[in-house]
Amino acid sequence: MSYAALQVDPTVLAEGVNLLWVLVVTFLIFFMHAGFAMLEAGQVRSKNVANQLTKNLLTWSVGVTLFFLIGSGISSLVGGSGFAPAFGASAANDYVGWLFGAVFAMTAATIVSGAVAGRAKLRAYITYTILLAAVIYPVVTGITWAGAYISFGGESFHDFAGGMIVHGMGGIAGLTAAYVLGPRMGRYNEDGSVNVIPGHSLTFAVLGTLVLAFGWYGFNVGTAATVFTVTEEGTLALGAFSTVGRVAMTTTIAMACGAIGAGLAAWAKTGKVDTLYVANGLLAGLVGITAIPDTTTWWGAFVVGGLAGAQLPVVFGFVEKRLKIDDVCAVFPVHGSAGVLGTLLFPFVATSSSVGSVVNAFIAQLIGVVAIGAWTVVATAAVWFVLKAVGQARVTPEHEQEGLDVSEHGVETYPEFGGGDSVVADGGSVSESIRTDGGSNE
Amino acid sequence: MSYAALQVDPTVLAEGVNLLWVLVVTFLIFFMHAGFAMLEAGQVRSKNVANQLTKNLLTWSVGVTLFFLIGSGISSLVGGSGFAPAFGASAANDYVGWLFGAVFAMTAATIVSGAVAGRAKLRAYITYTILLAAVIYPVVTGITWAGAYISFGGESFHDFAGGMIVHGMGGIAGLTAAYVLGPRMGRYNEDGSVNVIPGHSLTFAVLGTLVLAFGWYGFNVGTAATVFTVTEEGTLALGAFSTVGRVAMTTTIAMACGAIGAGLAAWAKTGKVDTLYVANGLLAGLVGITAIPDTTTWWGAFVVGGLAGAQLPVVFGFVEKRLKIDDVCAVFPVHGSAGVLGTLLFPFVATSSSVGSVVNAFIAQLIGVVAIGAWTVVATAAVWFVLKAVGQARVTPEHEQEGLDVSEHGVETYPEFGGGDSVVADGGSVSESIRTDGGSNE
Amino acid sequence: MSYAALQVDPTVLAEGVNLLWVLVVTFLIFFMHAGFAMLEAGQVRSKNVANQLTKNLLTWSVGVTLFFLIGSGISSLVGGSGFAPAFGASAANDYVGWLFGAVFAMTAATIVSGAVAGRAKLRAYITYTILLAAVIYPVVTGITWAGAYISFGGESFHDFAGGMIVHGMGGIAGLTAAYVLGPRMGRYNEDGSVNVIPGHSLTFAVLGTLVLAFGWYGFNVGTAATVFTVTEEGTLALGAFSTVGRVAMTTTIAMACGAIGAGLAAWAKTGKVDTLYVANGLLAGLVGITAIPDTTTWWGAFVVGGLAGAQLPVVFGFVEKRLKIDDVCAVFPVHGSAGVLGTLLFPFVATSSSVGSVVNAFIAQLIGVVAIGAWTVVATAAVWFVLKAVGQARVTPEHEQEGLDVSEHGVETYPEFGGGDSVVADGGSVSESIRTDGGSNE
Repeated sequence: MSYAALQVDPTVLAEGVNLLWVLVVTFLIFFMHAGFAMLEAGQVRSKNVANQLTKNLLTWSVGVTLFFLIGSGISSLVGGSGFAPAFGASAANDYVGWLFGAVFAMTAATIVSGAVAGRAKLRAYITYTILLAAVIYPVVTGITWAGAYISFGGESFHDFAGGMIVHGMGGIAGLTAAYVLGPRMGRYNEDGSVNVIPGHSLTFAVLGTLVLAFGWYGFNVGTAATVFTVTEEGTLALGAFSTVGRVAMTTTIAMACGAIGAGLAAWAKTGKVDTLYVANGLLAGLVGITAIPDTTTWWGAFVVGGLAGAQLPVVFGFVEKRLKIDDVCAVFPVHGSAGVLGTLLFPFVATSSSVGSVVNAFIAQLIGVVAIGAWTVVATAAVWFVLKAVGQARVTPEHEQEGLDVSEHGVETYPEFGGGDSVVADGGSVSESIRTDGGSNE
Repeated sequence: MSYAALQVDPTVLAEGVNLLWVLVVTFLIFFMHAGFAMLEAGQVRSKNVANQLTKNLLTWSVGVTLFFLIGSGISSLVGGSGFAPAFGASAANDYVGWLFGAVFAMTAATIVSGAVAGRAKLRAYITYTILLAAVIYPVVTGITWAGAYISFGGESFHDFAGGMIVHGMGGIAGLTAAYVLGPRMGRYNEDGSVNVIPGHSLTFAVLGTLVLAFGWYGFNVGTAATVFTVTEEGTLALGAFSTVGRVAMTTTIAMACGAIGAGLAAWAKTGKVDTLYVANGLLAGLVGITAIPDTTTWWGAFVVGGLAGAQLPVVFGFVEKRLKIDDVCAVFPVHGSAGVLGTLLFPFVATSSSVGSVVNAFIAQLIGVVAIGAWTVVATAAVWFVLKAVGQARVTPEHEQEGLDVSEHGVETYPEFGGGDSVVADGGSVSESIRTDGGSNE
Repeated sequence: MSYAALQVDPTVLAEGVNLLWVLVVTFLIFFMHAGFAMLEAGQVRSKNVANQLTKNLLTWSVGVTLFFLIGSGISSLVGGSGFAPAFGASAANDYVGWLFGAVFAMTAATIVSGAVAGRAKLRAYITYTILLAAVIYPVVTGITWAGAYISFGGESFHDFAGGMIVHGMGGIAGLTAAYVLGPRMGRYNEDGSVNVIPGHSLTFAVLGTLVLAFGWYGFNVGTAATVFTVTEEGTLALGAFSTVGRVAMTTTIAMACGAIGAGLAAWAKTGKVDTLYVANGLLAGLVGITAIPDTTTWWGAFVVGGLAGAQLPVVFGFVEKRLKIDDVCAVFPVHGSAGVLGTLLFPFVATSSSVGSVVNAFIAQLIGVVAIGAWTVVATAAVWFVLKAVGQARVTPEHEQEGLDVSEHGVETYPEFGGGDSVVADGGSVSESIRTDGGSNE
């Protein structure tokens, strides 16, 4: 009779369904690269679009191979399980877990490109991406998700889907890199006043925002990665899926309230509802909830999302006007401060069963934020200062003026709109010796 | 021995897999907002793109919070289960059902923005969205999906995935709002003849079309929401998935035939295959089948899709030239009349087991269409007439001329292409005191 | 007691979960049409964008209906199971299998449109698409996936997800059609030297690339279509999912190395990292692994992806300069040669358990490549030569000069940017009697 029961081994069942779910959400999270590419491309000048796109493509390509060869091993090493890189996996399906980790890692990496847009050398950016994927980010996951070293008074550091570990880290890294690199030419006048350098396409920026929001459902809800688990008694039970609905709801509400909060803040300030604030506010709301979607009450989602959105104009203004850091795509207010905010709010908005001591939980969160923030600042600043010292951090003023598309990539993003003035064979006008149709340029 | 059998409780199994499926399709349906944003942005003038994008972002953000706080409760109240709003859910996973409903509700809401493009005040649009999400749409679902009040002679009103409830309702609401609001300046000459105001980017419009089609698979196929069910005897069985293949097939065929039907109609009329007709025809084909993908025969999918596509030019011309309503993004022919058409065709193209009396079924469908249509027209007209009466429905002629991006949002969507003529610090040209890079504008 | 065990019939369980998975990945693969549309639109001149978009919409629409009515039947007929077209399915869920096959078929079809861009008549392209969907592609799947006729010395032709069957076939068909059609006007000078005709938007091209990569996870990983299987003893077991992680990993690594390989090759050649090479290299890496993601070692994924990327500039240059074929969107180097390369590399990079005799396996692969390639060239050339002979292959020189958007579709893709110079009613400028807002043009 036990033979009959074994017709459906709950372990096999759980493995198959969990794999299916993790694969689907991994694909969704991967698709966030399209979102970042469009969001950032839309927020830069048309002369720097191809550079931004190339950085996004190479962040993924270079980063994921490094994370395969080294980063995953560093994470396990720091986490206390020895150096166990992904390429040494003993079973084919172990690669699924690696890829699921990799898409989170690459999200942290790609955030940085938005902060250093318009003046970082491609080789500098790639160098930093290599180090981020191989070491800097893996150390962060090593001390948190892998090692779980941070706790205080019995309360563990809580970051469900990477509000601090991924987004906070990425936003802080971006701010640091942008600081070391210095602002774009013309961003500040000699008297310290600020010039606005608008992006070239709000449509692409909003498209990117919505692609990111779509992928974010994978990011947050997907972190509830175990549909099924098998109990000690050998019976099938819901795993993280037993409360997955909370994650889906809080993610939705925080996203919505982020957009509303930023829109209202902009409206209060200028009387107009700035489109890019609404879009970035939506993302800030998502970042804000990302550490805590599994534990937050429904009203807490309103609070976290609303505050994450409303802080956006304030923090952006502070970074721009006080710190005088040229964070081109606002990655610090969107990913950095919003990630920190949500992580710290954890005990105050959590369901009663999620937290023991509110004070101890807050201190644990604070320790985590400070530890990750400090490591990120130090490691990032070290890399960029070295790159700067050897003259490889930044393109020449001539190249910056001309645009990075031509100087770094030899292409023009929109040869038929704007600057082009030579004549091509089929009757249109285009800059000379520029091609974008897949071929070489001899 | 019964212990061994309980190792896999079919109830747990069904709950987990069904949750997984509903979450995946919910994400897909959410992604349709990116599709609507691009489709509508592409179909408006470049001076109104940011306005359209902001409306799309806020439709989702404002609408989903209202539907959480009020709308879901109104739906259950009208449906006869008492006021049970989503925030009062007793179990975390109840939120999944709410979110699944919310993405349908927000689809209905966002359709309207395409009809009132280029002249509606942001505050008017948001006011209407609040009422739609809180009351107008919930009443529609209350009398249909929730309450199932409509039937005739033993045949129930059949709307599987919202061909009438969501799309028909949205399309009729859009037409009504556009009528009350009046046409854009210059759309009609004093002699009543029509001027064409082309959209600014067919590429974005087609991108939006394909994103919508992708999400639509979630919309239609996902409405077959129960992968598994548990029979009264306690055994696992396929739920709506027992015939899910029909939904996938009819959705595909109707979409394809909608594009072909509209393309052929345009070709017959002008000798050319208008790209936007093909794109909108594809969507009309999808709308047409949405009420009935579960019951329609394969040849019926050809009929419904083909007719839904072919009616597009005819109905668009009628609305434009006879009704003289400026339905900017053609939301009535795409969502309204196509939704009505498919809903009414139900008994004529259904598999033999799906319908008892063809006549009674048709009358039930007709009652549903009239009831939903009448409620939508009355409620929508009331709101917009009030807004108009208090002078809040429409922007000033100066603002309309200038474009809503500048007047309502203080941004320019494409500062480097077209109108911009001031000089910015980094050497390019851009309109003065306009910024689109995430910050304030003091 | 066997009653209790039957509470969860493993057959029902496997059917439901497998259906769920196949549906999800089918949707992802469908979404690749948005990727192709954007990739190709970005790589053509702005005067031909709407033409390219229309072709993409109609490829899907016309192709999928033909594949439903005829193509699926031809595939089964050639495969030895008799003419069994999809519309004759005996069970609703059989349609799922048809749709899963259809999205692969339409991928092959749509590749061709990128090669013949800018000069093929719409009716010629549609005619070819009809024949491809109804006969040419179904013959290829008939002799491979359906019939499994190709083997040598006990080793079968191995093409897991269509590296040769879909992409190789599409790339070779595109090259053949482009050859017969001849180059665009002005592409080559009288002395045989080459003029560059750049695409109009790198942003759309890169967006398309990332959408394709997203969908490709469905394409490759989804081909591991059986999450669960039921053993002869009646127990539930993992099906292709037992090693699905390998597919996910090799797909990821090959994609990344394709981008890096192409970027490095471009850098070596010109000192700059061409954005479009990186993007197309990423796709070439994906194509390269598509035949063999299930069997390739982790280091093999580096090799296959890197080579597929690095061959791109070389093969593109060869096609352009030696063959003098105007393959506008580089579909041969991306889909054709990369697909052939990966298919032929199968035995050299496979895990030890995947291949018996390396030599025999290579010969089996070679036979498959030659058979598919020869059939594709002959069938494609025949169709296009006939179209050419009757003067229906190519638009007139005047229409080509003017752009296909106006001549074939009566629309202008970007009426506010670039060429437009008439005045429209609302104050902007636009070419006369062009409309893109959903309506007719009388």
